[in-house]
Amino acid sequence: MSAGRSLGRMRERRPLVHQITNYVVMNETANATLALGALPVMAHAPEEVEEMVGFAGALVLNIGTLSSHWVDAMVLAGRAANERGVPVVLDPVGAGATRYRTESCRQILDEVDVAVLRGNAGEVASLIGVAAEMRGVESMGAGASAADLAREAARSLGVVASVTGAVDHVSDGERVAAISNGDPMLATITGTGCMSSAVTGCFLAVADSAFDGAVEALVAFGVAGEDAARDANGPGSFHVNLYDALANLDPATLDGRALVA
Amino acid sequence: MSAGRSLGRMRERRPLVHQITNYVVMNETANATLALGALPVMAHAPEEVEEMVGFAGALVLNIGTLSSHWVDAMVLAGRAANERGVPVVLDPVGAGATRYRTESCRQILDEVDVAVLRGNAGEVASLIGVAAEMRGVESMGAGASAADLAREAARSLGVVASVTGAVDHVSDGERVAAISNGDPMLATITGTGCMSSAVTGCFLAVADSAFDGAVEALVAFGVAGEDAARDANGPGSFHVNLYDALANLDPATLDGRALVA
Amino acid sequence: MSAGRSLGRMRERRPLVHQITNYVVMNETANATLALGALPVMAHAPEEVEEMVGFAGALVLNIGTLSSHWVDAMVLAGRAANERGVPVVLDPVGAGATRYRTESCRQILDEVDVAVLRGNAGEVASLIGVAAEMRGVESMGAGASAADLAREAARSLGVVASVTGAVDHVSDGERVAAISNGDPMLATITGTGCMSSAVTGCFLAVADSAFDGAVEALVAFGVAGEDAARDANGPGSFHVNLYDALANLDPATLDGRALVA
Repeated sequence: MSAGRSLGRMRERRPLVHQITNYVVMNETANATLALGALPVMAHAPEEVEEMVGFAGALVLNIGTLSSHWVDAMVLAGRAANERGVPVVLDPVGAGATRYRTESCRQILDEVDVAVLRGNAGEVASLIGVAAEMRGVESMGAGASAADLAREAARSLGVVASVTGAVDHVSDGERVAAISNGDPMLATITGTGCMSSAVTGCFLAVADSAFDGAVEALVAFGVAGEDAARDANGPGSFHVNLYDALANLDPATLDGRALVA
Repeated sequence: MSAGRSLGRMRERRPLVHQITNYVVMNETANATLALGALPVMAHAPEEVEEMVGFAGALVLNIGTLSSHWVDAMVLAGRAANERGVPVVLDPVGAGATRYRTESCRQILDEVDVAVLRGNAGEVASLIGVAAEMRGVESMGAGASAADLAREAARSLGVVASVTGAVDHVSDGERVAAISNGDPMLATITGTGCMSSAVTGCFLAVADSAFDGAVEALVAFGVAGEDAARDANGPGSFHVNLYDALANLDPATLDGRALVA
Repeated sequence: MSAGRSLGRMRERRPLVHQITNYVVMNETANATLALGALPVMAHAPEEVEEMVGFAGALVLNIGTLSSHWVDAMVLAGRAANERGVPVVLDPVGAGATRYRTESCRQILDEVDVAVLRGNAGEVASLIGVAAEMRGVESMGAGASAADLAREAARSLGVVASVTGAVDHVSDGERVAAISNGDPMLATITGTGCMSSAVTGCFLAVADSAFDGAVEALVAFGVAGEDAARDANGPGSFHVNLYDALANLDPATLDGRALVA
């Protein structure tokens, strides 16, 4: 596993990352994707998602502003991705907050082979029926063992579970990696969770495995968050710095900054 | 009435502010909400809006990029908010510009008990049948007495009317407060009107009354605009500074900076 | 032809530019429009597009996140624009990447009299059946003669073709202007192509001809890109600087900076 090596590959190969995501963060995840070195494409029409995903190195599904037509498009694209071996990331934004969100995620997980489920503790817990303190989309805290939650979610859902928080935990059901990169300022702007899912898609397109890609993505995004916080005067300047930092990540030094246990 | 006290409460309680708003500004109003200290949630599916609004401290409806399904969702969410005592803000973006916008606003005002109507003079005037110079979404000027317009709109529509412009006027039909905070640069970026409506929702969730919340919101947003303009080189840097300024508003000094008559 | 004179007119007249565009860039094209000096309005409901376009100095259609209802709205608005002599810009985002995008563009070109088609080489080539290296939305390179492509597209489609790239080429089927303004950083953020289409709409509202407006727009946008790159530390700060630069464009010096051959 090497975030630096994968980042180098990404900038060389420039994989297309197909994103069916929410209205709030489309510009932000597209720009994060570009800043990192991959190429974003947003497309959700049933007439084209299957064709579009054929060009992609990864597919990212995000239910942040879901509605029935969009969920249908996600399933359509997800199945096409599965047929073509394109890895799928699911971001279950707000799962647990409303029944509709929880059920839509379960439907996608049932009908699509999801490689990586990237959510916060509350969202992931709700998908395996574990109670977690949940409050709208911006989930509050997690409960004692996010590591256990990640492992359990990975096992019961058959995914790599990527549970982000103050410390992130990624599990394939056996291994659990704890990633301590990042900065509290990441929680001060909307869409950083969605960006981390997009970045996960970027890394899946080049990494040696879904587990590796999920960990590498959180290292890279966390290091960029650390760099962005340095001269920020608040969430506005942090947000701007974050894109600069993603673009300025150095494949040669990235692994030396990884805080993975 | 104290903008500082309400801001302090907001940062302590972190109310959820449910927003059904337009595609152009979703990211911006979410980030303004977060920067101020509340938690945004964007959700518009009929399957979930009634459940989601149950967690909210306020509901903000904004017709900026309206279509029939979205207006239906606004009414559904608005009625659920009314049943649960959640205050509703309506931003009638572009009312008066097209018949469809005017009629959709009237429908919402008929079917939902709106606590605060936040718009510019042209938009508000169109909803009470008063002629006002109107030009697309970016309304031009107002006419002599915005104070009279606010009072009249409050009376005839049964709302707190919050009419923003160079000087803002808020009325409950009896009192009229004139707020002179703000900066001309607020007119140089899109969505500052929508942000002021979102900020109004944030304050309604913690203020002692709808009138108080509407006034406090415009004080806070206006002061942030003043701070943001200080080192801006144009609309791009002003926009960034605005989020920093919202986050850096100080509850202890805010009332001392209020220009309310 | 004078970009400076048209920019001066724009800031005096403040034309409304009606945009039916994609979810990813709505905020960005609205802010670019405002920064330049025109007024954006985003409206896509079939109930209002015909009425709204009646107030506009130009209509910009962009298929970046197309779906069938949106394409219908584009055709409806486009026909109304034609009836009223309002010039129409079409941005065929991703044409050639999927059949649905190519066919939707052809439908719009068939049913609407498009004044300016603004796309990259791959997109424009796909619409006249010429093979071009195409890769998702972020098209890669162009092929030898973008000038020939622009001339041929203008002739066969009956439009002014505005083919952007490292050097931009604008043709009315006879003349070809090559514009060398711009900066490589424009390719590091999403939506700069879409912004250049919006800016083209702004100039069409005031220029002496569609050809003039298309060229002037690319000069102005390119010069702003050059200014924005000067102190950028990456794509985030470049993006912010770009709005400042658009607002700070000086009509008196703009023509002196034009690199048009």
